[in-house]
Amino acid sequence: MSEETTPESLPLSGVTVVDLTQVIAGPFGTMNLGDLGAEVIKVEAVGRGDRSRGIQPTPAYFDTINRNKRSIEVDLKTEDGQQIVRELVADADVFVESTKPGRVESFNLAYEDLREVNDSIIYCSISGFGSDSPYENLPAWDTLVQAMSGIMSVTGEEGGQPLWSGLPSGDLITSMYTTQSILAALYARERGDIDSEWIEVPMLDAAISWLSARAGHTFGTDEPFPRLGTRHPTIAPFGLFSCRDENIVIAAGTQSLWTDFCAVLEREDLLADERFETMHDRSQHPEVLTEIIEAELASASADVWVDRLQAADIPAGPIHDTKSIWADEHVVRRNLKRTMEREGRDDAEVIDHPVHFSSLQTHLGTPPEELGESTDGLLARYGYDEAEIERLREQGVVGTGDDA
Amino acid sequence: MSEETTPESLPLSGVTVVDLTQVIAGPFGTMNLGDLGAEVIKVEAVGRGDRSRGIQPTPAYFDTINRNKRSIEVDLKTEDGQQIVRELVADADVFVESTKPGRVESFNLAYEDLREVNDSIIYCSISGFGSDSPYENLPAWDTLVQAMSGIMSVTGEEGGQPLWSGLPSGDLITSMYTTQSILAALYARERGDIDSEWIEVPMLDAAISWLSARAGHTFGTDEPFPRLGTRHPTIAPFGLFSCRDENIVIAAGTQSLWTDFCAVLEREDLLADERFETMHDRSQHPEVLTEIIEAELASASADVWVDRLQAADIPAGPIHDTKSIWADEHVVRRNLKRTMEREGRDDAEVIDHPVHFSSLQTHLGTPPEELGESTDGLLARYGYDEAEIERLREQGVVGTGDDA
Repeated sequence: MSEETTPESLPLSGVTVVDLTQVIAGPFGTMNLGDLGAEVIKVEAVGRGDRSRGIQPTPAYFDTINRNKRSIEVDLKTEDGQQIVRELVADADVFVESTKPGRVESFNLAYEDLREVNDSIIYCSISGFGSDSPYENLPAWDTLVQAMSGIMSVTGEEGGQPLWSGLPSGDLITSMYTTQSILAALYARERGDIDSEWIEVPMLDAAISWLSARAGHTFGTDEPFPRLGTRHPTIAPFGLFSCRDENIVIAAGTQSLWTDFCAVLEREDLLADERFETMHDRSQHPEVLTEIIEAELASASADVWVDRLQAADIPAGPIHDTKSIWADEHVVRRNLKRTMEREGRDDAEVIDHPVHFSSLQTHLGTPPEELGESTDGLLARYGYDEAEIERLREQGVVGTGDDA
Repeated sequence: MSEETTPESLPLSGVTVVDLTQVIAGPFGTMNLGDLGAEVIKVEAVGRGDRSRGIQPTPAYFDTINRNKRSIEVDLKTEDGQQIVRELVADADVFVESTKPGRVESFNLAYEDLREVNDSIIYCSISGFGSDSPYENLPAWDTLVQAMSGIMSVTGEEGGQPLWSGLPSGDLITSMYTTQSILAALYARERGDIDSEWIEVPMLDAAISWLSARAGHTFGTDEPFPRLGTRHPTIAPFGLFSCRDENIVIAAGTQSLWTDFCAVLEREDLLADERFETMHDRSQHPEVLTEIIEAELASASADVWVDRLQAADIPAGPIHDTKSIWADEHVVRRNLKRTMEREGRDDAEVIDHPVHFSSLQTHLGTPPEELGESTDGLLARYGYDEAEIERLREQGVVGTGDDA
């Protein structure tokens, strides 16, 4: 988490990733690789770039998922543009793409093409449904993946309609499998078990794998897992409760937590109430129990109740939103929101990598770049002289850095 | 994905993980390591085991997150029990734990303790809030992490209360960072950059990192990201729509998708309607647009409309639940639900690992075991003879395999 890193302290130091992904699924995964020390070269379409550069609010949305990447602006429909990427890949370890089916082939950037220039490349394809699916050509929007994977079906009020999980879960689950699978392949290559590798990460399959615990309900009962709002089928008190001003969450999920909870409420009389004797009893009377609890919680504010409950080590806390969370004592102490300074531009606000190591480190190295910010620098590093760069720019093979 | 693996084809072949985690966050992460070829030795409390062995429906719930693990039943409050784990760790590569603060120290299984028996151990601690938090002693239930991280705040109906994301997201996000961080450390160790390593994965921080795209809204506007049900703030038509029988999801998120969508509806007249001319126009009139669309969708069933829309490559699909999904054509073709046979027990139903490799493989090796199923086998492998095992069992140091 420290900014002071030595090359050896970054697990992926010296690893180069050529990144032909956009929006969230690919970029969040390659950001993880960058946080771990890889150099990520983000290849973007001339004049347009990653579609998420246009998602409101700009550039804040894009900035949160694109640190630690160098942006190069290349027209992959041109032979010269394809040649640039082949040269990047020749020196790289990993290539990641999330283009539409058939697109990398049309760019001459398929696995077989890139193996010709780099026989130890790890090539990762992110797609909606993989290469052997009835839905192969269907654009895999996150909301569609949430619907088709079952994620929406378990999200929502009891008796209400299925809802989004709020986070772009279909995308982010895919990101994590992308990072994980690339790391596994790098490890196998380092051990000498493989030369190069091709990896397919299908969004729908990735999302379905996360159903595991919920699908266990179906595998055991042959019933779909229900939507429960914030309730738990067999634990009470559990979920959202109103205090005088705001809601809080309480999860008094064991018998001893129930005893402690009644003590904090100064309602030890409830311990003698037959309706609430065992967890099973309590879960059979959730409505009357909630009514009794909320009558007590109405006497003070959410802040006060959270303090009292947490002081007794009862799992309870505020329901933060994406603004209030940054003032939380834990979040402030651990410095989770970071500002990355940029010369000549507004600073970027980002969320720090969450994992701590002892001798290894993660880093916030390069702030999110503007479209094509590193085009010239990268071309120069790969041997292009100024005249060549000028020619490529005039012919539209590389961008001018101006967003269209 | 194939069952026929050679040692070299599993990226983590030869890697041994000693696993002192339970419920979801740790076990889903170590299952990932097992899928990738690691041998995972699951250390469970005598007579009780992983708490999730008791979560209904049993054993289906537990089975979905505990394949590829060997169960050994050990009382860590005894010196002999601690010695057994030290011997396992002496030969292992990775140790993962998710016990309460102070617990591993009381078991003499802290990082410093285990480095004495294995100076190349990668030691991963999963906790709710990490070791430097005002909430350090608070039990980190998934629902609490969802509340405190902001995940609940973006989940729910417009104007309604915050809801769970349905999946145990706080746990599963933690799982993925656990797998990823261990892989990064294994890679660094293989390159010779580190000897041993200590890793801290805090659930709350992990969950907060997933806010990235949503927090971008706040960083750019200073406003919390709203709850939107299934609506999108700037895209229409988008979300859940009712057909004659059931709901489907449609995401016509570009101008050309809108044109194609109107063609499928046979309502090209809408293209000339001023209210719907641009994406911005359509997103300003979501209610009247939904009314018009649902009037058309009422003429046929969800199945029919999904076929028609998908045939035109429009992102649209069914809203599967945790039961209906297993009959989906894609899920069947890719064989995502698998049955693992067990001798003398009912088979286990599991969801396959979602990622495909070319030369590397993942596997479904060992089916989920009963509590302590491998106790004797593992003790024998580590040099305990029958008399010693008998003594340990009589003294309650290792279990009898009977669930209490």
